Amino acid sequence: MKIIVYGMGIIGGSIAASLKRKGHPVLGRNRSRAPLDYALQNGMIDDVASDYEGADVVVLALPPSVAGVELDKGKFPDGCIVADVCGVKANLEKTVLSRPRNYRYVGIHPMAGKATTGIRSASDSLFLGANLVIARSASTDESAVITIKSLARDMGFLRVVECSAVEHDRMIALTSQLAHIVSSAYISTEQVEKVGGFTGGSFQDMTRVAPMDDVWAELFLANREALLPEISRLTRRLNEYEEAIRKNDREDVLRLIREGRAFFERICAPDCGVFTEKS
Amino acid sequence: MKIIVYGMGIIGGSIAASLKRKGHPVLGRNRSRAPLDYALQNGMIDDVASDYEGADVVVLALPPSVAGVELDKGKFPDGCIVADVCGVKANLEKTVLSRPRNYRYVGIHPMAGKATTGIRSASDSLFLGANLVIARSASTDESAVITIKSLARDMGFLRVVECSAVEHDRMIALTSQLAHIVSSAYISTEQVEKVGGFTGGSFQDMTRVAPMDDVWAELFLANREALLPEISRLTRRLNEYEEAIRKNDREDVLRLIREGRAFFERICAPDCGVFTEKS
Repeated sequence: MKIIVYGMGIIGGSIAASLKRKGHPVLGRNRSRAPLDYALQNGMIDDVASDYEGADVVVLALPPSVAGVELDKGKFPDGCIVADVCGVKANLEKTVLSRPRNYRYVGIHPMAGKATTGIRSASDSLFLGANLVIARSASTDESAVITIKSLARDMGFLRVVECSAVEHDRMIALTSQLAHIVSSAYISTEQVEKVGGFTGGSFQDMTRVAPMDDVWAELFLANREALLPEISRLTRRLNEYEEAIRKNDREDVLRLIREGRAFFERICAPDCGVFTEKS
Repeated sequence: MKIIVYGMGIIGGSIAASLKRKGHPVLGRNRSRAPLDYALQNGMIDDVASDYEGADVVVLALPPSVAGVELDKGKFPDGCIVADVCGVKANLEKTVLSRPRNYRYVGIHPMAGKATTGIRSASDSLFLGANLVIARSASTDESAVITIKSLARDMGFLRVVECSAVEHDRMIALTSQLAHIVSSAYISTEQVEKVGGFTGGSFQDMTRVAPMDDVWAELFLANREALLPEISRLTRRLNEYEEAIRKNDREDVLRLIREGRAFFERICAPDCGVFTEKS
């Protein structure tokens, strides 16, 4: 099975490296040369590809706008499996389904990352124990999904979830996009310059993903419909806390605290797979 | 030096255990018996105390309202150092300074904790690498502060910061209280039941401190003046994100992302002591 990964950033590099570690032959493709040299020197890829010739599987580890163009115009071999790794799925799926394709599309979203980006942050262990979401439609090829799931296990993913692109986008608004916005908003105050010595784990956790890459702007805007209600929902809840504290209403503050605790406990069940997995 | 710790919860138990590990004789006091038995059986204290007789240092590891009564009415030996560990300081300091005291008061705030509480969560390594804040006033006894700092090193704290009670309360609103409120608000939606498989590190980090103990209601209300502006500040920033995304204004979303990134980078300087320490 010949695998070509287009895009040698942290995700593309980690996909290549973790597949190569399991013995798969992997070629890397990239617009600029330097990341390819780094990937070659560090044993993340076997060789460099300048097109998709002979590929059985192509992984597009590119920003959504670039991946969209590639899915629409790319010259893939007949029957080739093409997977993008973008964080928003409905728009890309629409592009793919807009006309018949000679390739088999499977949208995947690896739920792992680091605060840093680029090939130097890539690693063959980035996905160990992590979640992978597969976004699929009625027209998705079943055997392509089976191949992708098998590769996902080889990459180290612990859990693979399948859902529609729309469901993916709705869930991701809550589990990932909102978290990045909150983290960024939280840290954006002059006061943070003085926090040294006053922080415990909660501040670090709250602000860890604040240094977002610019590509997140694209992801937020592509998922506006699902993301906006989540931001509103959170600010309404913060307003409830604010009101209860302003009124010195101990019972109401306690209600909010206890409701939050109850929600947390619901997702701590051993079979829920949130806090038992890699975090 | 005879040390008595009143309150055998996670903080009191960890203070006792970490001091005992360093060879200090430590007695435990508690309203109910069971936590004392647990602490004795697990070598966290040498013995049980029913009053403060002969104490050189008393640590009050109690909720703010109980600590306040104790600081006002407790029968401490003359010259004894008394330290509370509460998360809000200005009110307690006011109580202490309301009339002359026969003891020497030092307010401390260990910046460490766990999602779980009680003596069973206590450990002699809870404070390793953590921050300790000492809240002091013009009337604070210098030699008492020196003794507390020496004990802090023995407990494993890496960094000790001294400031006024008011400054402590203002900083803690941002670095700890707001994080707990956000975490609780974030998780309080029916949608969280479906997140299994869709989460990465950002969701876990964002919601880790959501299961707050009821004592936080007391802490939030005691620090209303500093906390309310922080909640407003955060919701204003979230509204900015919401507006930029609603208007599909890519430039404005990018501005918000980049500003957050710049704030993050400011506190990543090696001497800032936020992300280089235990988190």
